[in-house]
Amino acid sequence: MNVALLAHEQFPDRAKTAVGVLRYADYDVVAVLDRGTAGSRVADHVPDVQDAPVVASMDDVGADVDALVVGIAPIGGGFEESWRPDVRTALERGADVYAGLHYFLADDEEFAGLAAEHGCDLWDVRSPPEDIGVAEGTAGSVDATVVTTVGTDCSVGKMTATRELYEDAREQGMDAAFVATGQTGILIEGEGVPVDRVVSDFAAGAVEAMVLDAAEDHDYVFVEGQGSIVHPAYSGVTASIVHGSQPDHLVLCHEVGRESVHGYDQPIPPVESFPGRYEQFAGPVSDSDVVGGMLNTRSVDGDEAARDAVAEFADTIDAPADDPVRFGTESVLEAIR
Amino acid sequence: MNVALLAHEQFPDRAKTAVGVLRYADYDVVAVLDRGTAGSRVADHVPDVQDAPVVASMDDVGADVDALVVGIAPIGGGFEESWRPDVRTALERGADVYAGLHYFLADDEEFAGLAAEHGCDLWDVRSPPEDIGVAEGTAGSVDATVVTTVGTDCSVGKMTATRELYEDAREQGMDAAFVATGQTGILIEGEGVPVDRVVSDFAAGAVEAMVLDAAEDHDYVFVEGQGSIVHPAYSGVTASIVHGSQPDHLVLCHEVGRESVHGYDQPIPPVESFPGRYEQFAGPVSDSDVVGGMLNTRSVDGDEAARDAVAEFADTIDAPADDPVRFGTESVLEAIR
Repeated sequence: MNVALLAHEQFPDRAKTAVGVLRYADYDVVAVLDRGTAGSRVADHVPDVQDAPVVASMDDVGADVDALVVGIAPIGGGFEESWRPDVRTALERGADVYAGLHYFLADDEEFAGLAAEHGCDLWDVRSPPEDIGVAEGTAGSVDATVVTTVGTDCSVGKMTATRELYEDAREQGMDAAFVATGQTGILIEGEGVPVDRVVSDFAAGAVEAMVLDAAEDHDYVFVEGQGSIVHPAYSGVTASIVHGSQPDHLVLCHEVGRESVHGYDQPIPPVESFPGRYEQFAGPVSDSDVVGGMLNTRSVDGDEAARDAVAEFADTIDAPADDPVRFGTESVLEAIR
Repeated sequence: MNVALLAHEQFPDRAKTAVGVLRYADYDVVAVLDRGTAGSRVADHVPDVQDAPVVASMDDVGADVDALVVGIAPIGGGFEESWRPDVRTALERGADVYAGLHYFLADDEEFAGLAAEHGCDLWDVRSPPEDIGVAEGTAGSVDATVVTTVGTDCSVGKMTATRELYEDAREQGMDAAFVATGQTGILIEGEGVPVDRVVSDFAAGAVEAMVLDAAEDHDYVFVEGQGSIVHPAYSGVTASIVHGSQPDHLVLCHEVGRESVHGYDQPIPPVESFPGRYEQFAGPVSDSDVVGGMLNTRSVDGDEAARDAVAEFADTIDAPADDPVRFGTESVLEAIR
């Protein structure tokens, strides 16, 4: 399936979703739309993902496009009016449009009209399904090994760690599933529920339903975590994912040098306290152990220094650790098998 | 303000909201509607609340009624069609209708039409306001003492404990506010946000906004807790309230004899572990200590045995304790002052 990725003015550094799609999704990306870097190629900016030309608008995309994916989100999750011509052009060409914004494309009169006229789908990834209920506390009894990622903060790399574990597991012949809980994961996987957009009472229920479903057909279920239990705003989302998924194993994600909560004036407790925090929190609902750690070393220059950082992190949490992007997931996957 | 309380077939034992309104709200209750116990009086069933006749329908209510309050909720929170004539009659008589159901009266075509025709308000207590945002982590810096109730489970008496603490504090001349987070508390207080109905990402933000608002004008802010951090379905709501309110003090609520999670096949951890659990959970966001406990002894026969149970609970949690309904809140309030 051919997709174009909208990432105006933000590719690649502030286009987390676009880069995630380039790295992990099964889509063939035929173009990235970024009027700021038009004329370059993806490979000029991000070396280790599929390559594609960067162009200024949908008008410059010659290839057939099945879907336009909005790969960025401004603070607040609104729709930038400067993107309107691209979305309009995509729909007029018969392409679906996918977005993970708080603003729903389906609620936009012009887009809804064009989609109906041209037989296209508008997929608002962040709009949760309506048939979600209260968790029944049953995810722990599935006939599969459930692994949930947790973190010392948000934006430390939980989606990436989960996806790398899932892909590496499959490469090793393990029958693995990926449960997406956030917009980037959902866009990559093609399904999932944006837990942060689910009504609090049903958030754990949403996760439980996905785990039960995935465990029907797979031996290993990798659940994408969100936020952190020490986060002043998002700990409710984290709690719902940990208790809703009732994992056998937890994988602790951290970024080198992160010492205070992203965007908040609040120190993060010592990293060595986190395995105990998460195990004690999960404990009454499920007997979950922190089986390994994933360290994001993107700010570290040189592989040697990065290896040292990973070794120190492993020491700190007293469990095997890896950097999933830089070095892979082997030692952690070993502990899960 | 005169209200009638709808509690068909469930008064008083399964009418938690109706009994809460009778006990705590400023409303003058002119009648309880229960076709099962019509002909009796409230005082025949519940001794320590305002008295009123129990009648079979709105047609039997002679007094002027400013509002009909739906004081029960079936499992699932739907609207029982057998209540429709009462709601219809109330609206036709010019009374507002308040309800805390998942089914919103305002979405009911007949009720919306009658309300418009007769100039009445439909107040769906469980419908959260739309202007809620992400928590900014600022509740801890307010110029007021914030006290949040937490529990070993749901339905152990957190709303009652919070309300009794608030009322006793005011009687002692403390300038106190009550922050309602669930439908009964909101119906009693006349305002509040149903945190369990707020989108996960904004749940802590909803609580924070209420605390900031209450702390503007008051010295003590009592925040009604929800659920429990060991609950398989609702821990996300609990987490959002604890981290959103950043309390100075926590008050631990428990019911005598509760050993497994209400409605779930999951044991509750030893009660003595809860002060540490909540303090460790709150700790990275706010330095909150469990300053006392509230024990629900409704299942205990005799005040002497109840006093023994309270003393044992105080010992177990190593803090002063009370039964707020049976004995008052003095020892815990003492620790808060």
